[in-house]
Amino acid sequence: MSFPQQSVGLVEPQSAHFDQPLTLECGKSIPEWTMVYETYGTLNADKSNAVLICHALSGDHHAAGYYAETDKKPGWWETCIGPGKPIDSQQFYIVSVNNIGHCKGSTGPTSINPKTGKHYGPDFPIVTVKDWVKTHKKLSEALGIQQWAAIIGGSLGGMQVMQWAIDYPNDLRHAVIIASAAKLSAQNIGFNEVARQAILSDPDFRDGWYKEQGVVPKKGLMLARMLGHITYLSDNAMRQKFGRELREGKINYGFNVEFQVESYLHYQGTQFVDRFDANAYLLMTKALDYFDPAKTYYNDLVAAFQHIQAQSFVVSFTGDWRFAPERSHEIVKALVDAKKEVSYAEIEAHQGHDAFLLPIPDYIAVFQAYMARVAVLPA
Amino acid sequence: MSFPQQSVGLVEPQSAHFDQPLTLECGKSIPEWTMVYETYGTLNADKSNAVLICHALSGDHHAAGYYAETDKKPGWWETCIGPGKPIDSQQFYIVSVNNIGHCKGSTGPTSINPKTGKHYGPDFPIVTVKDWVKTHKKLSEALGIQQWAAIIGGSLGGMQVMQWAIDYPNDLRHAVIIASAAKLSAQNIGFNEVARQAILSDPDFRDGWYKEQGVVPKKGLMLARMLGHITYLSDNAMRQKFGRELREGKINYGFNVEFQVESYLHYQGTQFVDRFDANAYLLMTKALDYFDPAKTYYNDLVAAFQHIQAQSFVVSFTGDWRFAPERSHEIVKALVDAKKEVSYAEIEAHQGHDAFLLPIPDYIAVFQAYMARVAVLPA
Repeated sequence: MSFPQQSVGLVEPQSAHFDQPLTLECGKSIPEWTMVYETYGTLNADKSNAVLICHALSGDHHAAGYYAETDKKPGWWETCIGPGKPIDSQQFYIVSVNNIGHCKGSTGPTSINPKTGKHYGPDFPIVTVKDWVKTHKKLSEALGIQQWAAIIGGSLGGMQVMQWAIDYPNDLRHAVIIASAAKLSAQNIGFNEVARQAILSDPDFRDGWYKEQGVVPKKGLMLARMLGHITYLSDNAMRQKFGRELREGKINYGFNVEFQVESYLHYQGTQFVDRFDANAYLLMTKALDYFDPAKTYYNDLVAAFQHIQAQSFVVSFTGDWRFAPERSHEIVKALVDAKKEVSYAEIEAHQGHDAFLLPIPDYIAVFQAYMARVAVLPA
Repeated sequence: MSFPQQSVGLVEPQSAHFDQPLTLECGKSIPEWTMVYETYGTLNADKSNAVLICHALSGDHHAAGYYAETDKKPGWWETCIGPGKPIDSQQFYIVSVNNIGHCKGSTGPTSINPKTGKHYGPDFPIVTVKDWVKTHKKLSEALGIQQWAAIIGGSLGGMQVMQWAIDYPNDLRHAVIIASAAKLSAQNIGFNEVARQAILSDPDFRDGWYKEQGVVPKKGLMLARMLGHITYLSDNAMRQKFGRELREGKINYGFNVEFQVESYLHYQGTQFVDRFDANAYLLMTKALDYFDPAKTYYNDLVAAFQHIQAQSFVVSFTGDWRFAPERSHEIVKALVDAKKEVSYAEIEAHQGHDAFLLPIPDYIAVFQAYMARVAVLPA
């Protein structure tokens, strides 16, 4: 085997099928559903070492390891999951799920709608963070896990962690909320709306029935991803990475790709078209926009957090302007005001929102230290 | 007359036609060209009180006053131009131009190409900040103005001011550079590229020949403008303006406009389609990307600024993240290092890049104080 030593190595996705209808927050329901997930490490006898990983917009259940020796890339959070890493597969039984409404195996727009025998496409209902947590809970029951040692997520994943801690307070001991926010800002909703409009206005979107009609809204999805990428990096990170370097060393006075940063964004956009579904992208951005646990508590986040029993660990990155440290401060302040146990780390990092995926030494060290606490069972 | 007291009131655009071919930086030339402009105030006997206004991406020559009593809005810089205002029409003879390649009257993609008898469309050559300054200089000569008391501009307009001060050092006494940058960052180029791709990939763009084919790339232009608008406002400004307010007071679980911020962006986008040309938008973003006066001086901005004879006044706004104060610091530092006279004001303002258009008391006060100095002729 040729995998790096600190990797969980070869992994295989599993799936759980649920025959019962699932009613969603929007009022609609799906008659049956499947959840795809991966596990790393071994569940201990008293089932006290299970950790749940919640993914962000473009993540999925494949958080660590490789599907084959020929894989060029490991799972998306290989930096943090594996033997000797913060989420240590020698200590924890790690479960990583793909959310419904997404496009990597769990029931979503690309799945067959049993009512019609065709793809759900745009008929797949809007899903929310609360809906996802409900499905995670069903999976926990199927796996026989009554209480998670920790539930962990970055960005949109961190939102799921907060919702878990609110909705099922006794079912997790630790909530690890990284580079997240208790609600999106107007600016963030604005960026999401531009991305959605790019997709919706692509003539190949066909009101969401592109799959049935044998086309792909490539341009729209590409634009959405290009825009996303700019906002996941900081201005400084982009300066360091690309500066104003020209691809051919000179200006061509035309509209083809000239600067390296354009080339990078085009590449990222094109790649994304091959691995993501447009309807799923629309759903993910809506789940982000709608998340606002304080809303049902008269916009009082302290009241929303009142239920929480878990200890929380909140992490932010100084160069992250899409989920800025100020958003984490709001979470920490509300937890403190609600008299909850919370640790907070603000990591000096210029990489932008993407920092939570990267091997930044201070981040890894503080994450590792916190997870060592998680590994110790309460007396 | 029903115009506000501190307005220049009724104004009328004028135009100057140039029969000589104009060779551009890209190597191409246009056989003849027209420049549209407006003037406010009166030129004094020794022609020493002329001030030139350079516009930004979506601005034009109509910087102040009204075309008719029924006009709902005055020119784009009414805040700063008029009797008793920083650029005081009682003291200065103010000339405001529309740049070539733009779409408000000066020769550009929507003009008739004398060689073909049809619109230039995508055949209009790429224009640069240096090209614009060259055309401004021709207009100065036509108007008999040998030396401008000041050349003033914000954002892309500020870039023209810098280029003026470098290329024609003796032809201006003061350079007023507001919310600008000595070159765009990779992040900014990235945003511009997404905007361009939105336009270029609109099926109604028709390789730029949309006008000939009776269509308008509405969706692309709208997306470009929506994205632009988000980056002209700060996160805080958007929070204060829209928060997470819902248009109908409730979530509808769908992809129609729900949040107020979405509604605002859609409105801005739609409005823009009626007043801007897609080919011109592409050209403006390229002029922004290409601007980099240090480039021909081995990337040494100090060397580029060595030529400058004008006194400079640089202004930035704390909440402006698209043209951040750091970019103005670079300008100021290079001017200081080149041993040039420079004043700098960093205005506390949460409004984002748009701040330079707004009546922010500290900004107006410091701008007014500087312009009082401009009004005093050197001994």
